Amino acid sequence: MQKAPIFIGVIGGSEVKPQIAKLAEEVGREIARRGAVLVCGGMGGVMEAACRGASEAGGVTIGILPGDNRREANLYVQIPIMTGMGYARNAVVVKSSHAVIAIDGSYGTLTEIGYALQSGIPVIGLNTWSMAMENKQDKSIIQAKNPKDAVDKAMALIDMD
Amino acid sequence: MQKAPIFIGVIGGSEVKPQIAKLAEEVGREIARRGAVLVCGGMGGVMEAACRGASEAGGVTIGILPGDNRREANLYVQIPIMTGMGYARNAVVVKSSHAVIAIDGSYGTLTEIGYALQSGIPVIGLNTWSMAMENKQDKSIIQAKNPKDAVDKAMALIDMD
Amino acid sequence: MQKAPIFIGVIGGSEVKPQIAKLAEEVGREIARRGAVLVCGGMGGVMEAACRGASEAGGVTIGILPGDNRREANLYVQIPIMTGMGYARNAVVVKSSHAVIAIDGSYGTLTEIGYALQSGIPVIGLNTWSMAMENKQDKSIIQAKNPKDAVDKAMALIDMD
Amino acid sequence: MQKAPIFIGVIGGSEVKPQIAKLAEEVGREIARRGAVLVCGGMGGVMEAACRGASEAGGVTIGILPGDNRREANLYVQIPIMTGMGYARNAVVVKSSHAVIAIDGSYGTLTEIGYALQSGIPVIGLNTWSMAMENKQDKSIIQAKNPKDAVDKAMALIDMD
Repeated sequence: MQKAPIFIGVIGGSEVKPQIAKLAEEVGREIARRGAVLVCGGMGGVMEAACRGASEAGGVTIGILPGDNRREANLYVQIPIMTGMGYARNAVVVKSSHAVIAIDGSYGTLTEIGYALQSGIPVIGLNTWSMAMENKQDKSIIQAKNPKDAVDKAMALIDMD
Repeated sequence: MQKAPIFIGVIGGSEVKPQIAKLAEEVGREIARRGAVLVCGGMGGVMEAACRGASEAGGVTIGILPGDNRREANLYVQIPIMTGMGYARNAVVVKSSHAVIAIDGSYGTLTEIGYALQSGIPVIGLNTWSMAMENKQDKSIIQAKNPKDAVDKAMALIDMD
Repeated sequence: MQKAPIFIGVIGGSEVKPQIAKLAEEVGREIARRGAVLVCGGMGGVMEAACRGASEAGGVTIGILPGDNRREANLYVQIPIMTGMGYARNAVVVKSSHAVIAIDGSYGTLTEIGYALQSGIPVIGLNTWSMAMENKQDKSIIQAKNPKDAVDKAMALIDMD
Repeated sequence: MQKAPIFIGVIGGSEVKPQIAKLAEEVGREIARRGAVLVCGGMGGVMEAACRGASEAGGVTIGILPGDNRREANLYVQIPIMTGMGYARNAVVVKSSHAVIAIDGSYGTLTEIGYALQSGIPVIGLNTWSMAMENKQDKSIIQAKNPKDAVDKAMALIDMD
């Protein structure tokens, strides 16, 4: 394995509708096609679909799990990291990524968006959260039109310094 | 000290404008007046103003800090908890509270709002974030009109089971 | 409550024999008599006995818990901090203490001893672990003869700078 | 990459003498030769030497770092996981491993040994800590004679259920 590839996080809920799963799978595939490593929370839903897409396209997938049982990882996680730290692990998913792509999402995804923006890590959004502070829209999440656009934007925004 | 009082979290940014600091201070004061314990991240801005208000009104203040140096706590933190875990400590601030009051806020505050909503802990908002998922407004944050209203609502929503 | 009292950690296993519980209870009582705050992991065994001793002597007790359910705290924890981080919380118990007293102990106690010595926080031992590196005895744990001696030594070693 | 290889943790201090570095490098090489993935804390000393050995033998190396800057990883870490959680990350290194090999070691290593034994993860020792509880020697660390013996023992003790 080569050193220091690009790591792209995929964040989103552990339960999803079929059309969202399809988006996530395509995002995973696009990440793998570019030779980047996919980082996620290792569970179901968006995470599983993205890992499946990346894995089937020959990519590397990392799942940073909340528990300490590697059997909880979805079937497409190649490298399970067991934190045993519950949802405090959300910070680790984000910090281990050069950029994150948020797809749909639960409140856990909101914590990951917050951590990324706080750390200056680019967040690309696909059908996900938007926020406003006192009714003033926050434009920090870069909106993407489709999975390919999301990965293109993530790659373009990564600061490899 | 008596066992098991109510713990109310106050979350918000470490840098604030004077009018926000005034709101936070008043929230702290109201928390103390009700005999509840104030939990926060222990740093400056909203956290410091809230601790000052609570402390001056005779209340108990807990600061759950990101670092491991208790000197980083603001002057009004009586009980500094040193996590050394960086912003992963945001999850601890929230989980240790029966309800949280979000005032203004940075991206870190967004992570705390996400953790609270994920855990079923009531979030009361004062001039803070609002979110939408795919343009559908999320109504989970209970909006308050003023500091007294915020603390009234927090107390009313707490599930002491 | 006054600002910045001394915080003394009590570390030890969650299951103990009666004579160990008696030692822990007396350590808790001694901590309270000196006006210091007792910090522990909030569970049973040594932690519960120490909290009972401190609480009955009018002291303040903090329990930094692995889970996110405050009902898991022992009955004598006045301030439960819910980390939801599992045993990674052991680092928080230690870092929040000016000195720690290790009583008996499980492997979890060993992690806490390691964190304390790594951080330069004094460790006082009562019937606890001793370690050797390649057969060379490590003398970093200060051995105490009895509960009063343990708390005396903890207080004497604290660096309040 | 194939799913679910064996993950072997290598724990030890960030500063080491040359003969210890040589042992660690050979342990890394043996891990790679068996097709297992090396997990470590990602820093210098034992961690760097082990990663170098594994990497040069064509193995995969994971570094679970305390900070949030991937430049702090040693040169031979292929997959840096940035926790930003300080030494609470020690629990993650251990939980992500099927077995751990302790080489020499600092107090941080002691925390990792404690976490592993607490979690039922086999610990193989090479010139490392030994512990006693109230003068009764604890035999939980399996002593190895040399690097090859350490990795043989780790592989033999892994429960792949």
